[in-house]
Amino acid sequence: MKLKSFLFLIAALCSTGMSAQEADVYASQRQGWLDKAIASTPVLKTEKVHPVGLVKAVADTSAYQGWRVDPAGEIGSYLGSSLKDEKNKSVTVDFGRHLTGTFSFRVDLLDRVLDGPIRLRFTFAEVPAELAVPFDPYPGTISRGWLQDETVTVEFTDSVYTLPRRLSGRYMKIDVLGHPTDCDFAMGDLAFTATTSAPEIAPETLDIPLSDEFAAIDRTALATLAECMQTVYEDGPKRDRRLWIGDVYLESLANNLTYKNHDLTRHCLYLLAALANEDGRLHANVFELPEPHPQRGSFCYSYSLLFNMALAEYLAATGDSDTARDLWPVAKAQIDNMLTFVDDRGIFDRFRPGGFNWLFFDWRDGIEESTAMQGLAIMALEQTADLGKSLGMADDTKGWNATASKMRKAARKHLYDKNARAFTSGYEGFIPSQKSVLSQVWMVLADVVPAKEGAELLSRALSDPDFIRLGSPYAHHFLVEAMIKCGMTDQARALVADYWGGMVRKGADTFWEVYDASDDYLSPYRFYPVNSYCHAWSCTPAYLLRRYPAVFQN
Amino acid sequence: MKLKSFLFLIAALCSTGMSAQEADVYASQRQGWLDKAIASTPVLKTEKVHPVGLVKAVADTSAYQGWRVDPAGEIGSYLGSSLKDEKNKSVTVDFGRHLTGTFSFRVDLLDRVLDGPIRLRFTFAEVPAELAVPFDPYPGTISRGWLQDETVTVEFTDSVYTLPRRLSGRYMKIDVLGHPTDCDFAMGDLAFTATTSAPEIAPETLDIPLSDEFAAIDRTALATLAECMQTVYEDGPKRDRRLWIGDVYLESLANNLTYKNHDLTRHCLYLLAALANEDGRLHANVFELPEPHPQRGSFCYSYSLLFNMALAEYLAATGDSDTARDLWPVAKAQIDNMLTFVDDRGIFDRFRPGGFNWLFFDWRDGIEESTAMQGLAIMALEQTADLGKSLGMADDTKGWNATASKMRKAARKHLYDKNARAFTSGYEGFIPSQKSVLSQVWMVLADVVPAKEGAELLSRALSDPDFIRLGSPYAHHFLVEAMIKCGMTDQARALVADYWGGMVRKGADTFWEVYDASDDYLSPYRFYPVNSYCHAWSCTPAYLLRRYPAVFQN
Repeated sequence: MKLKSFLFLIAALCSTGMSAQEADVYASQRQGWLDKAIASTPVLKTEKVHPVGLVKAVADTSAYQGWRVDPAGEIGSYLGSSLKDEKNKSVTVDFGRHLTGTFSFRVDLLDRVLDGPIRLRFTFAEVPAELAVPFDPYPGTISRGWLQDETVTVEFTDSVYTLPRRLSGRYMKIDVLGHPTDCDFAMGDLAFTATTSAPEIAPETLDIPLSDEFAAIDRTALATLAECMQTVYEDGPKRDRRLWIGDVYLESLANNLTYKNHDLTRHCLYLLAALANEDGRLHANVFELPEPHPQRGSFCYSYSLLFNMALAEYLAATGDSDTARDLWPVAKAQIDNMLTFVDDRGIFDRFRPGGFNWLFFDWRDGIEESTAMQGLAIMALEQTADLGKSLGMADDTKGWNATASKMRKAARKHLYDKNARAFTSGYEGFIPSQKSVLSQVWMVLADVVPAKEGAELLSRALSDPDFIRLGSPYAHHFLVEAMIKCGMTDQARALVADYWGGMVRKGADTFWEVYDASDDYLSPYRFYPVNSYCHAWSCTPAYLLRRYPAVFQN
Repeated sequence: MKLKSFLFLIAALCSTGMSAQEADVYASQRQGWLDKAIASTPVLKTEKVHPVGLVKAVADTSAYQGWRVDPAGEIGSYLGSSLKDEKNKSVTVDFGRHLTGTFSFRVDLLDRVLDGPIRLRFTFAEVPAELAVPFDPYPGTISRGWLQDETVTVEFTDSVYTLPRRLSGRYMKIDVLGHPTDCDFAMGDLAFTATTSAPEIAPETLDIPLSDEFAAIDRTALATLAECMQTVYEDGPKRDRRLWIGDVYLESLANNLTYKNHDLTRHCLYLLAALANEDGRLHANVFELPEPHPQRGSFCYSYSLLFNMALAEYLAATGDSDTARDLWPVAKAQIDNMLTFVDDRGIFDRFRPGGFNWLFFDWRDGIEESTAMQGLAIMALEQTADLGKSLGMADDTKGWNATASKMRKAARKHLYDKNARAFTSGYEGFIPSQKSVLSQVWMVLADVVPAKEGAELLSRALSDPDFIRLGSPYAHHFLVEAMIKCGMTDQARALVADYWGGMVRKGADTFWEVYDASDDYLSPYRFYPVNSYCHAWSCTPAYLLRRYPAVFQN
């Protein structure tokens, strides 16, 4: 996800609902949380993977993004064969599946003595287009540095070279950019040391009968999740390789029903807690390297509440009340902060306590998220109240359920537009009131409307072109949840088959950051090769299929 | 130096003058020599060097190779200043002098948090043109990999990155190829860890009065030598970074009168001895990394004899008769092998014992070196005989002086062309007889002609355009020696002032591999930026000025 820095600067100036005394207590706990986070850093499982064959990218207007990958021979026809041969000057290997980790190679001498450096370029690709579309001149809006092309000067044969950067992808193109002529040499070994903190997944973890289509969706979702499970739940192992609260929530939901690496969830929760702002507000994203540090100023108040929901899910999955109790002040601080945004009517106002504050629910230009946030706030209030009570912290939660009820009624009263026959979102005079699928989704999820009305709302929103559509796999996850909540199980099943299944049909090895069936070239960064094609927030079919087996089974 | 592989294949098939019994004895000593070579690997002196300022390459038709370097500000105006500023997107720093070693840098955060990789390209340059002439598409005949442009993906600020490759040059261009936009950062440190095995040179080592011109030539020669003195005497620290016998000879000559790191000479002599062919023939060049190995098949019989002369000079400089005696079998083997090429008349025949054998005396297309080799063989026979006697090995040298005398007379009789009034070189029916400066130089050095006649010969050869001119600094060194030998001291002084002084006037920080006053773009590799601009065989003014102070003093 891309941050909007101007928002942070404003948000960073805002106060929170935390008293000075609370802030002191909170601050004193931070070091302990950091110690626990560091002590619980997952040990990665490593696996050495070698290419399974040669391939070539072939232009094909009917293929995803205009490129398909065709087989191009046995790997054995390349390894050991002269790199000076024209046919070996540009070769693409296929590792057979999406991998994340480090890459090493060795060039072996075939004849005489290497008397000059060999210059090689390695280009890693998650999707075929990254093998074929020129990276320069780079038109993208995020750093050119994300693209995975690395040039290496090989000075010695029979020595192992390891690229200094972690990489992610399925395919690797090798271009010989320069070499001496008085000797001969060949690629001797190509080895990817793949890492994950997901344990081996046993096939019986999903014991419902599935169609081939859903089985493929599940495999792809599990691969996506495993690839994103590194020392944190990363958003995308190619890009941008960090811990976002939104991804923790969705990945840990899926993990709870699949890989069950609960230590990873615990590690992430502690890391986020330890790196919160001094006033208790969580940062939306944090980095582990070179040492743990937050994306300072990245206050995204929808994500803040997802921390609480992830913590509640973690407790439910593990029974680890020690951790939940230890982190309770963080959960409380997020609610306290959120409540400062709620006006006297019971409506969440993103302009309170000052400035325009950052919320995230979807990737769609111009979307207004306040009504969605109203729904999430209601859910978070109730779930966090339940969490507090279960931890013996009922006193901390006083009034939260009442506020949730008030907000639910207020939503109905102030956010529902009778003429539009829908919930709208906007600020008179600032942001024109808009009709979106998103707002209906979150009103349904928050029980603002009963199931039957919810189904009507969703059906209307999805069929009426005047409603702003959803943009991202992230938002689609919550739409599926909302559909199931209000009994639209056939539609939910069809949506997963259509949306995630669409990616599978277009050749996805892992689910993509961005997907719109009507536009293969969609990119929030104005250059689709820099999109992440293995993205945590797209892994949720692994959760949905297990959580709602009746909806998805054959 | 570039090798001619087809010659090696032929040469490798030839037999030597060594008996099977001698070969066995020789083989048994190789491991001991290798152990001594490894044990004596020089410990490099390191120095951390920071840039002294910013510069820019400016097109200038009157400058060497069309580019001059102008000052472009204080280094402080770049370090700490945003790399996102257009003015910092492509910057060249000047380290103030030619350096060899490793380069490290650090990017520091100025604002917010680095949320994507920075892509940087570093281009190291020995001469200004390397900063400005595009490297691609690469037209050169040797590996593109020698050019020193390295691209780095910086993932972390405030962390030190070290380029994985050793580098050599004075200037470094830094191009920002990609960066995130939501944060700000600057180059925090640029540090070159320079290495040499030359100790600090004390100014009093040359205690004769010198003109400014010769003082500058001497400084440049000393810098060249020090830069080439690494764990071996390298030919060029940028390219091709290895130990050639010809360079050992010239560098150790200069070292004996300047830096006096005799252990380095000893290390190189042992390394060459240990890596000789099984039959005792030395390889013309060897590599230390990843483990010591020869350029197998690189038999250059003129270089082989220079080993003996370097060993004799080493003994004279150090009195280390243990090493000289230990390596005596190597010296003897080179003479024995050379003698197999001498025909009944006493003439060195490069086609014996079979094939066309490799000799090197100069870099000049079409030059025929057999007459030069006749001279070198005479010198090597006599000097090696003297060496053997001084080591108590007189028995081994029986007949060598007599053969030298015979070869001297034979040269006069068979190689001197009365019509041409010059020594010629060629093989009737194979290689047309040619007149070259080179042949006269070596006849003079070998005392085939008395001084007065030698001076006439040289003067005639240098003034008559029908004589093939010398091409390289390497050959020019021997011309200076020959001039001094036959009393042409004014001409010798003028030649050093003109040839090496010419490089200084054109801006040389170190002396170049290739120099022709009439062609700044001359390159044996069809791309002048890949020439070496710090080349061992050009360092000999440091020797000449000290060996012949009367010739060069003011």
